[in-house]
Amino acid sequence: MDIAILADAVERGERRAVARAITLVESARPEHRVQATELLETLARTGREAIRIGLSGTPGVGKSTFIESFGLMLVAQGLRVAVLAVDPSSKRTGGSILGDKTRMERLSRSPDAFIRPSPSQSHLGGVARRTREAVALCEAAGFDVVLIETVGVGQSETVVAELSDVFLLLLAPAGGDELQGVKRGIMEAADIILVNKADGDLKATAMRTCADYAGALRLLRRRPQDPDGFPKAMTVSALEISGLDRAWAEIRDLVDWRRAQGHWHARRAEQARHWFEEEVRQTLLAQLAQPKARSLMQSLSEQVADGQLTASRAAQDLFASLWPEMEQTKLPESLDATIDTP
Amino acid sequence: MDIAILADAVERGERRAVARAITLVESARPEHRVQATELLETLARTGREAIRIGLSGTPGVGKSTFIESFGLMLVAQGLRVAVLAVDPSSKRTGGSILGDKTRMERLSRSPDAFIRPSPSQSHLGGVARRTREAVALCEAAGFDVVLIETVGVGQSETVVAELSDVFLLLLAPAGGDELQGVKRGIMEAADIILVNKADGDLKATAMRTCADYAGALRLLRRRPQDPDGFPKAMTVSALEISGLDRAWAEIRDLVDWRRAQGHWHARRAEQARHWFEEEVRQTLLAQLAQPKARSLMQSLSEQVADGQLTASRAAQDLFASLWPEMEQTKLPESLDATIDTP
Repeated sequence: MDIAILADAVERGERRAVARAITLVESARPEHRVQATELLETLARTGREAIRIGLSGTPGVGKSTFIESFGLMLVAQGLRVAVLAVDPSSKRTGGSILGDKTRMERLSRSPDAFIRPSPSQSHLGGVARRTREAVALCEAAGFDVVLIETVGVGQSETVVAELSDVFLLLLAPAGGDELQGVKRGIMEAADIILVNKADGDLKATAMRTCADYAGALRLLRRRPQDPDGFPKAMTVSALEISGLDRAWAEIRDLVDWRRAQGHWHARRAEQARHWFEEEVRQTLLAQLAQPKARSLMQSLSEQVADGQLTASRAAQDLFASLWPEMEQTKLPESLDATIDTP
Repeated sequence: MDIAILADAVERGERRAVARAITLVESARPEHRVQATELLETLARTGREAIRIGLSGTPGVGKSTFIESFGLMLVAQGLRVAVLAVDPSSKRTGGSILGDKTRMERLSRSPDAFIRPSPSQSHLGGVARRTREAVALCEAAGFDVVLIETVGVGQSETVVAELSDVFLLLLAPAGGDELQGVKRGIMEAADIILVNKADGDLKATAMRTCADYAGALRLLRRRPQDPDGFPKAMTVSALEISGLDRAWAEIRDLVDWRRAQGHWHARRAEQARHWFEEEVRQTLLAQLAQPKARSLMQSLSEQVADGQLTASRAAQDLFASLWPEMEQTKLPESLDATIDTP
């Protein structure tokens, strides 16, 4: 495969090329990793930046309908929109691609939209790396907005929050007791809470829920990257397409303010540092998944479980056998013990 | 230092030797690590096992008073008791040793008790390894019960739960709303919830709180390692020394049942496997803290933040420079992409 040709096609915004490029960065095969790195470096020349919007919400809050309505509104304004899904629990196969496109049928038919379903499987830190690289490809392809959707299983919300410029939390109208269901960390990552389904019978409940969350947000510590009034809670109806334009206006205001204050650039730099360090850690830990390391670790693990070996000795044996050149010292500590014979 | 002599003294249960041995396993110096491993291997010959009791509870619930009263009761029954503290947030220095002993003054004066304050500092997975090895030393020294206390900051409760045979959660009497404060994961790790301060004015509240927690425990999924009626909630008063004998009887019943059913051995084997794998992971990640790795990582990190390098390329550069022999492939995946030129 000619990476230069693929890069050109991605840069021209050809959707099939973007899809192929994402498949390339998703591959774990060593030769594909080499090509993926080359592709990403080539495309870094474009210097293009999209607004990266992270979107979290548990199943049933109407996420697909929201993305469809919100995406179509952006497209109608002349913007190009990419939608990426992060779902570490996904065990879906080929059928899912149809599934993901079916659930956003009208948006997927728009020539200015690109929808990428979540890959069929994931492992370790792979989800983060693949999503991060897919976002970079969409930016290089000239999309104006990249929506990164998560179902909020495990660490996926943290991953998405660390990948986005603006983080939206989509919630359903609910009674007071159910407020507890939102994880504190996610609440703290949110820039805008959108209470969906503010329509029909649920409208009044949605407004009460919104007020409850607005109150909860005021209890959180103000972050430096927040202008007055942020984070905020709003009601929307993805079904009746109401409130979406207001939400988009708030997102743009927030982005403009952060750009002007330098927070935008600082945050992207911080995220880049974070992902680099995370990639190094994951690559290091992935060494333990190599066949030789796995089988040695398994046999030593059994001996430790049987009490034949202490954990420390087993760990030393493993390192001596696999990576004899590595130093096994821990971090320097303040505790420099002097130990005498009793 | 002669490790054989130290091992003999520990095996005879000499408290000063135990203290020195713990200082040795707490040290990060490479020569001390070698000696510590030798010491632990030598002492594995004793085959002694204590009942390891994990104890968690936020400040103010009366943990020190509980340990003092509970420990003195065990000593009065002819048992030898060791108390270890896990406090990853501790920045205390020499003064803390006095502090820790003062807060359990009577217990610390008993010749059948051994109290070890938390070390002055900690890092990465160091807390877990040191505590695990200190527990092994106390077992080899012939203590019948090892109490492992945590203040419940960060991951310390998980560490203690993974180190103990029986996990106690000490709580204060409280109104219904405050129930939410207990982290779900800790609730699920608890074998017995002890509502302390069931004395004086608080007695009625303590009993209501206990009933609330008993109700909450019934909502949790039954674990295979639980006999009928466990996990359970009980009231105690460490101040008036009431309920402690009943709590100890419950602990022994639980331990006897688990031993008879094979859960005791299975759990210890599982924990040993877990700690071995954790030690391997931490040793591997500690490579990044070596001076050469740190400085290279820092300079690459800045280039990634500036957009001069992609995260993937920077990670590849780092590995090529530090560990050229390592393979950088990720885990094999189901996704074996075939990618054509567009």
